[in-house]
Amino acid sequence: MTFAYSSAELQAILVPVAVRGATSAVITGIAALRDAAPWELSFLGNTKYKPEVAATRASIVLLPADYVGAPAADQAFFLVENPSAALASLCARIEQALWPRSEAGIHASAVIDPAAQIDPSATVGPLCVIEADVVIGPRTIIGAQSFIGRGTRIGADCWFMAGVHLATQTLVADRVRLHPGVVLGSDGFGYDSSSGKHLKIPQVGQVVIADDVEIGANTTIDRARFSRTSVGAGTKIDNLVMIGHNVVIGRHCIICAQVGISGSTTLEDYVVLGGQAGVAGHLTIGKGAKADGQTGINTTVAPGTFWKGSPCVPYQLEQRINVLRQRLPDLFRKVDTLAEELAELKKGN
Amino acid sequence: MTFAYSSAELQAILVPVAVRGATSAVITGIAALRDAAPWELSFLGNTKYKPEVAATRASIVLLPADYVGAPAADQAFFLVENPSAALASLCARIEQALWPRSEAGIHASAVIDPAAQIDPSATVGPLCVIEADVVIGPRTIIGAQSFIGRGTRIGADCWFMAGVHLATQTLVADRVRLHPGVVLGSDGFGYDSSSGKHLKIPQVGQVVIADDVEIGANTTIDRARFSRTSVGAGTKIDNLVMIGHNVVIGRHCIICAQVGISGSTTLEDYVVLGGQAGVAGHLTIGKGAKADGQTGINTTVAPGTFWKGSPCVPYQLEQRINVLRQRLPDLFRKVDTLAEELAELKKGN
Amino acid sequence: MTFAYSSAELQAILVPVAVRGATSAVITGIAALRDAAPWELSFLGNTKYKPEVAATRASIVLLPADYVGAPAADQAFFLVENPSAALASLCARIEQALWPRSEAGIHASAVIDPAAQIDPSATVGPLCVIEADVVIGPRTIIGAQSFIGRGTRIGADCWFMAGVHLATQTLVADRVRLHPGVVLGSDGFGYDSSSGKHLKIPQVGQVVIADDVEIGANTTIDRARFSRTSVGAGTKIDNLVMIGHNVVIGRHCIICAQVGISGSTTLEDYVVLGGQAGVAGHLTIGKGAKADGQTGINTTVAPGTFWKGSPCVPYQLEQRINVLRQRLPDLFRKVDTLAEELAELKKGN
Repeated sequence: MTFAYSSAELQAILVPVAVRGATSAVITGIAALRDAAPWELSFLGNTKYKPEVAATRASIVLLPADYVGAPAADQAFFLVENPSAALASLCARIEQALWPRSEAGIHASAVIDPAAQIDPSATVGPLCVIEADVVIGPRTIIGAQSFIGRGTRIGADCWFMAGVHLATQTLVADRVRLHPGVVLGSDGFGYDSSSGKHLKIPQVGQVVIADDVEIGANTTIDRARFSRTSVGAGTKIDNLVMIGHNVVIGRHCIICAQVGISGSTTLEDYVVLGGQAGVAGHLTIGKGAKADGQTGINTTVAPGTFWKGSPCVPYQLEQRINVLRQRLPDLFRKVDTLAEELAELKKGN
Repeated sequence: MTFAYSSAELQAILVPVAVRGATSAVITGIAALRDAAPWELSFLGNTKYKPEVAATRASIVLLPADYVGAPAADQAFFLVENPSAALASLCARIEQALWPRSEAGIHASAVIDPAAQIDPSATVGPLCVIEADVVIGPRTIIGAQSFIGRGTRIGADCWFMAGVHLATQTLVADRVRLHPGVVLGSDGFGYDSSSGKHLKIPQVGQVVIADDVEIGANTTIDRARFSRTSVGAGTKIDNLVMIGHNVVIGRHCIICAQVGISGSTTLEDYVVLGGQAGVAGHLTIGKGAKADGQTGINTTVAPGTFWKGSPCVPYQLEQRINVLRQRLPDLFRKVDTLAEELAELKKGN
Repeated sequence: MTFAYSSAELQAILVPVAVRGATSAVITGIAALRDAAPWELSFLGNTKYKPEVAATRASIVLLPADYVGAPAADQAFFLVENPSAALASLCARIEQALWPRSEAGIHASAVIDPAAQIDPSATVGPLCVIEADVVIGPRTIIGAQSFIGRGTRIGADCWFMAGVHLATQTLVADRVRLHPGVVLGSDGFGYDSSSGKHLKIPQVGQVVIADDVEIGANTTIDRARFSRTSVGAGTKIDNLVMIGHNVVIGRHCIICAQVGISGSTTLEDYVVLGGQAGVAGHLTIGKGAKADGQTGINTTVAPGTFWKGSPCVPYQLEQRINVLRQRLPDLFRKVDTLAEELAELKKGN
């Protein structure tokens, strides 16, 4: 259980236009209409699920103000302007309870270089390491056991969960959210192999993260060879993603889990990459282009196009090919038959 | 070297039915018959390798009680009921030596909230962070530098290696084993993009792990949007796996390395997913279904079926297609020839 | 900004054969000729970019000694023997400034077992945990918050970034470089499933890393069931790679990001695996063999061969197939037409 609210408490939070019925249940969960148990709240977010309202076991149901119908025994209908918005406001409330705002200040167990500048309104959790010349902005929270390397600058209102790692000279703007195990600024993967050995090419660039970016657990973003590996404002990156050195990611992109982007590739704004997709190096992916899960992008991609397959082809074509390839056994048989028939015919002539 | 046993010590551990020959070697390794060096022990686990016994350089060989044959000079044959079982018992002994049971108690360097309840028989390693309202059960070991977030409950006899991360309100049952870098309870990847920006949908559910689950290094399991992301009893998950929000995994599943499972998908019991397989969201994978490595599952899958390819098709069909696609160059040529021949024939008519 | 050099400072570092022109710019970045801004240095590393020199906005350009041409206003040409080598020497200098050599010694906040042997010239960062019987060689740097498990031995001149995890009895040779989140020695993924449950097979082997290996962020290498999982000298491994138990990797291999290698597979020397490639278990990949990104290797591979596709086929054949599969819609149509024509013809006969 992550929370517990009575019907009265939920009315105070959600301020429904009207309430039908009543329940003594204490609500400790939220679930879809068909899955809900009596200790859960449910909601009609999409009218196509309207038929499920009558049968739901949820003790409280958020419904649009014009909903017609009566609750069961020990069940309350909360009529609201917009059930989805009401649910979101409830979830935001629960989120605050789950992660109560830490007090400002630096935990006594953290190891802080005297040359670090940490805003007095910021929070640094237990057992963090903050190196020299780090700057941390107002109200930013650095979760426990995080590492912030030399010369890194972090803006305002960032929220880093415990256990993130920002290497030397990383730049992070405002309202950036990082999940545990994120690594920013590990070396790019670059070697000079001309001698038969792989000689390290120093990776002396940075990682630069713009406003409102969120990065998922255990994702890694390599520092540039020189200049910058960058992620644009509003872009959201899922877990276990790999972003290579000198990659430039635009604004408002969506990068799903386990995607890999090779070095020096550019994603323009609003690009969407499905899970486990891979992008080769030195390419440009145009604005708003999309790739399905597991796509292998090995070519520059025009804005607004949609890709699938490895190596990728346009989505509709790949869908077509995937139907036809399942008919390959038939096709081979058919061609054999045609060849035989033709041979017969030629013999006959 | 991780261990060192004399022949006499190994006899005391393994209690063979009979011993043939003798060796003065100190055994510091275990290896397959054909790979073994004189300082290693080997074993006949599968009768098909019987011909390799005579040539093995291992100084000690575990053999079935009815094995006929004599050892070489400075070599001992240990005859046992079941060589594989004997080997397992030896490995379990070595495992105890490698990870001697830590003393119960909390390391002085750990940062523990006063409102955490830690069983006196449990162990909390150095530099851990344990937040408020955490409950840790009997004999559970929390490895060094781990983070256990607010309100998390952990059962009995769990073994968490160093450096695991359990976010707020995670539930873990008994005998769960976690490897370094595991992240449980990072936020699910959910946004409302209707405005052109990606607005965060709060992720206020939990991660729930049942008894006897094992989770590999750097694997991430996201918390539910609401309700639960869950892993059933006895399921084993390898390294670098991504499990999305609201996924429900049944009992006794096997999830190999680098698999990704998208949000709200259900795996019934005994599902097996090969390495790097990906599963789309909102699907059901039936009981005992299997997918080969790199499979892309984009459809609900019936129980007991076996799948391959991206997008997936039934295993046998995919195998067939993979043979035929290599013959595509021939097929294209053949069809061209047929077309020419047919044109000739029509001309002739 | 990660560095700032005046033209005079750069001349002192790079010692050009000659300088043409002059600039008052302070150089704070490095960029390719066409991308460079006035505060950046650029270079002519490949003669094919010669036409770009005249138009570059870089204030300082490294050029070969025989370059003919004059700089723009407030621009300096540094003529050097080898512009790429000069750039590398500059980057090495910058790298030293980014990561100034830590002082030798053990940080007061680290938790060190009294039975660990740490060379006096080595550095152990803040909040590290070093268990019993660990040996750390001369000049090796163990970054902050790292975990070094019981009995692990680390050679000379290694550089571990913050937050690495070496489990019990890992062996690391000299000049090994590990990035944040690396896990060496997590358990192999092995179970005996004959009973319907998955019973743990103890994983009591080791991980052994040879000289000059580099391993990327959040990569995991599992310990062997028994004996060793090993990585040969000079091999470079990128981020988020998974290497299974008992894998043997040769010397000077290149393993790109998100590759997965299943248990007991052997890579001979100089193997190159592209990003997201997967290799099944118990295979041998011959010396110098290569696989493209996302390749699925399910077969033993001869030395020097190049593979692509999942499951893999020889690179050239796969390229051919990928062209032809896009023509499948045409082929199906053509065969239908042929069949109709043939039927007409037979009717006519």
